[in-house]
Amino acid sequence: MISLDEIKQAQEAISKLARCTPLEYSTSLTNLTGNEIYLKAENLQKTGSFKIRGAYNKIRLLSPEERKKGVLAASAGNHAQGVAYAASFAGIKSTIVMPETAPLTKISATKSYGAEVVLHGENYDDAYQKADEIRAETGQIFIHAFNDPAVISGQGTLGLEIFAQLPDVDVVLAPIGGGGLIAGTALALKELNPRIKLIGVQTAGAPAMYLSKQLDKLHYLKSVSTIADGIAIKRPGDLTFEIIRRYVDDILTVDDEEISSAILFLLERAKLVVEGAGAVGVAALIHGKLAVRGKKIAVVLSGGNIDVNIVSRIIERGLVKTGRSVRLVTSIPDRPGELRKLLQLVAEAKANVIGVYHERVEPQVPLGKAKVELRLETKNKQHAEGIVYFLAKEGYQVQLI
Amino acid sequence: MISLDEIKQAQEAISKLARCTPLEYSTSLTNLTGNEIYLKAENLQKTGSFKIRGAYNKIRLLSPEERKKGVLAASAGNHAQGVAYAASFAGIKSTIVMPETAPLTKISATKSYGAEVVLHGENYDDAYQKADEIRAETGQIFIHAFNDPAVISGQGTLGLEIFAQLPDVDVVLAPIGGGGLIAGTALALKELNPRIKLIGVQTAGAPAMYLSKQLDKLHYLKSVSTIADGIAIKRPGDLTFEIIRRYVDDILTVDDEEISSAILFLLERAKLVVEGAGAVGVAALIHGKLAVRGKKIAVVLSGGNIDVNIVSRIIERGLVKTGRSVRLVTSIPDRPGELRKLLQLVAEAKANVIGVYHERVEPQVPLGKAKVELRLETKNKQHAEGIVYFLAKEGYQVQLI
Repeated sequence: MISLDEIKQAQEAISKLARCTPLEYSTSLTNLTGNEIYLKAENLQKTGSFKIRGAYNKIRLLSPEERKKGVLAASAGNHAQGVAYAASFAGIKSTIVMPETAPLTKISATKSYGAEVVLHGENYDDAYQKADEIRAETGQIFIHAFNDPAVISGQGTLGLEIFAQLPDVDVVLAPIGGGGLIAGTALALKELNPRIKLIGVQTAGAPAMYLSKQLDKLHYLKSVSTIADGIAIKRPGDLTFEIIRRYVDDILTVDDEEISSAILFLLERAKLVVEGAGAVGVAALIHGKLAVRGKKIAVVLSGGNIDVNIVSRIIERGLVKTGRSVRLVTSIPDRPGELRKLLQLVAEAKANVIGVYHERVEPQVPLGKAKVELRLETKNKQHAEGIVYFLAKEGYQVQLI
Repeated sequence: MISLDEIKQAQEAISKLARCTPLEYSTSLTNLTGNEIYLKAENLQKTGSFKIRGAYNKIRLLSPEERKKGVLAASAGNHAQGVAYAASFAGIKSTIVMPETAPLTKISATKSYGAEVVLHGENYDDAYQKADEIRAETGQIFIHAFNDPAVISGQGTLGLEIFAQLPDVDVVLAPIGGGGLIAGTALALKELNPRIKLIGVQTAGAPAMYLSKQLDKLHYLKSVSTIADGIAIKRPGDLTFEIIRRYVDDILTVDDEEISSAILFLLERAKLVVEGAGAVGVAALIHGKLAVRGKKIAVVLSGGNIDVNIVSRIIERGLVKTGRSVRLVTSIPDRPGELRKLLQLVAEAKANVIGVYHERVEPQVPLGKAKVELRLETKNKQHAEGIVYFLAKEGYQVQLI
C-alpha cells in the first residue's frame, strides 16, 4: 500500500514542474447549494489536466537504465499530454500511441510537448495493443494511466494541496474514471484527517467503478458512451479499486445532460473552461445529488481539455434548453414591410433578435407567402412561450423548432 | 493627485470582499512571444471583473449621511455589477440605471447582487441622463465608473497585487476604456518601481485615450463600435487622462478580429473565459504589437463577462478562419451509396465530419442530383484546401462556403 510519506515526496518533486492550482471560493455555487463551495481549478494545470502529476512521479522514480530506454503510453487524451510533458521535463524520450480518431488538437498538443506520436487503430484498445508491441520491440517503459502505485502517489499530491489550501475542508468531490486521481487524493486526505469525506463522481455512461463499489468486486464494462471522454473507462484498475474501497465514502453518477449544464455553468459563472470529466463534481452539486448542507466542500475540476466545437454545441443546446434562446418559424405575406412589422412585434415582446432567415423559394412555401425563421434571445422558458402566444394573437402561425 | 498610501489603504479595505486573483504563468504565450508571460486572471474576480475594487473604495469613504442616501450608477456592464455587489457588502442601498438594450444576463446579475435596477433608454448616454434625474430627486451618491480619485485608487490595488506576486515584473499590459484601471495600476507600480513599463491597450473601434495621448489633449469620440463593449468609451476622464499622460509609457490598439482570436486563444490554451475588453492585452501580444523580447510581462485580463452567445460565434468563426472548420458544398448523383462514397473519400483525406446536410428538393438542384453540404473538422488551411483538391480530382465539383 502507498504511504502518506511517498505522496509527500512526490509533492516535493512535482512542485518543480506542476503548478499549485488555485482553490477558488464560488459564491454562486455556495448560494445554490447551501454549502461552502471551493473549486480546485486543475483545468489551469500545465497541459490542461492533473495528469502530469502522476506521470512525472512515475518518471522520476525510474532507474538510469530505464530512463535511457524512454517511456511509452497509450492514450487519446490528457494522459498523453501529461506523459509527453513530464518526459520532456525529465529530459527523456517518450512515445505515445493514440487512436487515429483522436481529436486533432490533442495530437498536436502531444507532439508540441515533445513526444513521438504513433497513430494506430480506431480506439484506445487498439492503441494499447500497438503500444504493447512497441514495448516488446524497444523495451520502453510503459506508463499506465492509473493502475500504478507511483502514478497514484503522484495524483495524491492534489489531496495535499487541497489540505494546505483549506485545512478544515469537510468533503472533497472528485471525478472517477480509472480511479487514479481519487485513489491518491483520498489516501492523502484520509491519512491527514480521517474525518474528511471523499465522494467520487462517475458518468452514468461509464459507471464501472460505481458498479464495482456496489458489487464490492471489480466490474468491467463492455461499452461506454459519454460526453466525459476523460473518464470513459471500461476497465478500472484493481489497485485503484482496493484504495477506493477503503478510502472513498461514496460514489455518485451524473448523466450527459447534467454534465453539459455543469460545463455551461462553469463557463458562465466561474469563467472557467472545464471538460466533461472535470465537470462531473459540479454536475452532481447543481443537480442536488449530494445530501449535505452547511459543509465546506472542495470540488476537483480535473481538466479543461475540451474541444471548442463541443463547447459551442453545449452553449447552443444549453440556451435552448433553459429558454434563453429560441428558434421559431412563421410565414408572412411576401410584401415589402411585412418582415419589419414582424420584427417590430418581437421587439415589443422584449426579445433580442440574434438571427433572421428569410426564404421564399422553398417548394413547401405557398406562393405569396415567405417563410421566416427567427432566432431570439429570451429571458427564460416563460418569456419564450409568451412571445409565441403574443405573435399568435397578432395572427401569425408560429412554430417552435 | 492620488498617493501610493491611499492605494495601500484601499487594498486593506478591499481585501475584505475582493479576492486576490491568480497571476498565472502562461507556457503557450511565453513560447509564442519570446517573453515570460503571466496572466492576471481578474476575470475570476467576484462579479467577473475588477470593478468591485474601485466601487468599494468609493463606498467605504462615504460619510454616514451619504451612506444613508445610498448610491447610484449608470452602466450596461461590469460597473453595474461592481457597484451592486460592493453596496450590498457595505449594507447600503444601490440603484443602477441600465439601458433597455443591456444583455439580459447582466441585468439579472446586477439584480442578484442586490441592486434596484432601472431600465431606461437605448444606450449609456440615455441611462446616464436618467441617473442624473434620479440623483436630483433622491440625493443618492453617484459613483462614476472611472473619473473619480477614490475609484482610481481602488483599481490601483490591482497594481499592488501584481507587484506582490511578481516583484521583478518588467512590463504590465492593461486595457483602457475610461482609463480608471490603468491609471490606478500605473500610479501604484511606478511609485513602487519607476522602471516598470506600463502599456495600455485600446480597441481600434474606440481609441479615445490612444488619440488623446497622441494629441496630448483629451479627445472625445462621436461614436464607437467594437466587440469589446467593456471599453467602448466615447468620453474618457480628464483625471484618468492626467495620470495616464504621466505614468503610462505607451498605448497600442487592436481590432475586433485580433480581439476575437485572443478570446479563442484564452479559451483553448489558458482555459479561461475572458470578455473582449479583457482580451486586448493578449490580442496585442499574439499579433506582435509589442516590440520587446526577454521581458517579464504581466497581462491584465480585466473581466470575463461575455455573453455565451458571442463565445459560441467566436468559436465558429475562429475555426473557419484558421482552416480548422470548413463548410463545403458539392452535388452527388441521387442514387443509393453515393453519399457513403463521398464520406469515404473525406475520411481518407483525414477530415472529421461534424455535420452533413443532404438536400434534393431545392429548386436549384438539377433532377437526378442531390446537394450535399458538409461541415468538416480539419487541421489547418492547407489541409482544408487539400481536401477540396482531392475531391475535385475524384470528379466532384466542390465549393467552399
